[in-house]
Amino acid sequence: MNEIQSVQNPTIRRLKALKDKKAREEAHEMLVEGEKLMREAAQLKLPVSDALFDADMADRFADLARDMERAGARVYAVPRRLLEVVCDTKTPQGACAAFGLPSFFDMEHAPERLVALDGVQDPGNVGTIWRTADAAGVGGLLMSAACADPFSPKVQRAAMGSGFRVPVSMTDDLPAMLTALKARGYSVVASSLHGAPFYENAPHGGRFALVIGNEARGVSEAVMEVADVRLKLPMRGGAESLNAAVAAGIMMYELTRD
Amino acid sequence: MNEIQSVQNPTIRRLKALKDKKAREEAHEMLVEGEKLMREAAQLKLPVSDALFDADMADRFADLARDMERAGARVYAVPRRLLEVVCDTKTPQGACAAFGLPSFFDMEHAPERLVALDGVQDPGNVGTIWRTADAAGVGGLLMSAACADPFSPKVQRAAMGSGFRVPVSMTDDLPAMLTALKARGYSVVASSLHGAPFYENAPHGGRFALVIGNEARGVSEAVMEVADVRLKLPMRGGAESLNAAVAAGIMMYELTRD
Repeated sequence: MNEIQSVQNPTIRRLKALKDKKAREEAHEMLVEGEKLMREAAQLKLPVSDALFDADMADRFADLARDMERAGARVYAVPRRLLEVVCDTKTPQGACAAFGLPSFFDMEHAPERLVALDGVQDPGNVGTIWRTADAAGVGGLLMSAACADPFSPKVQRAAMGSGFRVPVSMTDDLPAMLTALKARGYSVVASSLHGAPFYENAPHGGRFALVIGNEARGVSEAVMEVADVRLKLPMRGGAESLNAAVAAGIMMYELTRD
Repeated sequence: MNEIQSVQNPTIRRLKALKDKKAREEAHEMLVEGEKLMREAAQLKLPVSDALFDADMADRFADLARDMERAGARVYAVPRRLLEVVCDTKTPQGACAAFGLPSFFDMEHAPERLVALDGVQDPGNVGTIWRTADAAGVGGLLMSAACADPFSPKVQRAAMGSGFRVPVSMTDDLPAMLTALKARGYSVVASSLHGAPFYENAPHGGRFALVIGNEARGVSEAVMEVADVRLKLPMRGGAESLNAAVAAGIMMYELTRD
């Protein structure tokens, strides 16, 4: 394994740059932190360019380093301080690697069950919804440009590997995309605090796109107009609303029930 | 409104100390940050001792300060740096107050629908489950000692006011508490990745206590043994599990369906 000592090393600078959304888009790469996520990404055959390991934990990561090398990565032993420079977490887990971005879908090949995020801005919410979609059997994530960037480390951490499995599609014009989906037989369901009762009106079976709105403002007006139904989960106690990821989870699990 | 300038002022020291769990227990008080939460706590008649306001935002908070004074608080204008010392957030919202802890329930008066947290450690998860319980109509939160402290600012922020409404009960011996509830006719439902299918086996109607386990280890063995049923939500894609708050939300909403 080669060693890197300097923060000025081109590989360190390249990986560090992946903290930035634009850099990720240009390089079509993202940083994956920690053994578990790295193994999942490699197993799903995402291409990997460079992998860094804490030089003081070389023994522990010998196996993982070999696997990364086999997957095509250049592997480096680095001092802990360089991992801290590159990684998003304050206490890096001793290993990280730059992987190619996971798969996107286009409208021609959209999965039959979709969750659409209309300006969901908290990275934890985006990642948690991604993870829940995977578990519920929702096949794709449609995201408006106002959402948190799906390939940020925070989102991928919360997605816990589901970010590598469930494909995403990003759009500047979510209402137009949803209109196109409606023409293809999708039922567009918007989560709304002013909507009709959810359980009584939720569609069952068939294609759907469930829309989850911004944490503070909810689903945008333009998307509301496109939606086939606007539905609200029961609010029995004093709470005015639910956390976006929790509401998405309850609705996805209900919409996918047999 | 009186002014405070020094970080050594006894009121500042007392409120700052409320960051600590033991201090909260001894004082039977917690710090509530931001206008929205302060108003909710006051509306629910939680006793308030001291309220601090950013001296540079005195106009904006004139109304709130008057309401706090009416509720019995001593109110102070303080420089921003003192709010930063007292508050948990990096960018305090300009106002905070020390409120008495909200209500507890004892086993004699346990609500009919309960969610029990068995070592849920992430404050965001605890607060989000609290908020969801309120919305779902689950009347109480039973917490093992290994959980995140319910009266920390992080938990209360995530609970968004539901922490003032839904009563809590804390216990060193969750299995014994659940056993006592079973004797009173409660159905104890444990969330488990090795459980039976959730939808086919979930009880409907009647008293229940839904147990949510630790984020990494799940529900403890001792609690599993006490449970009437161990149930698992369907995992259709590649995800191994759900976020604890999402799983709790899906299960609570299903268990409380008419």
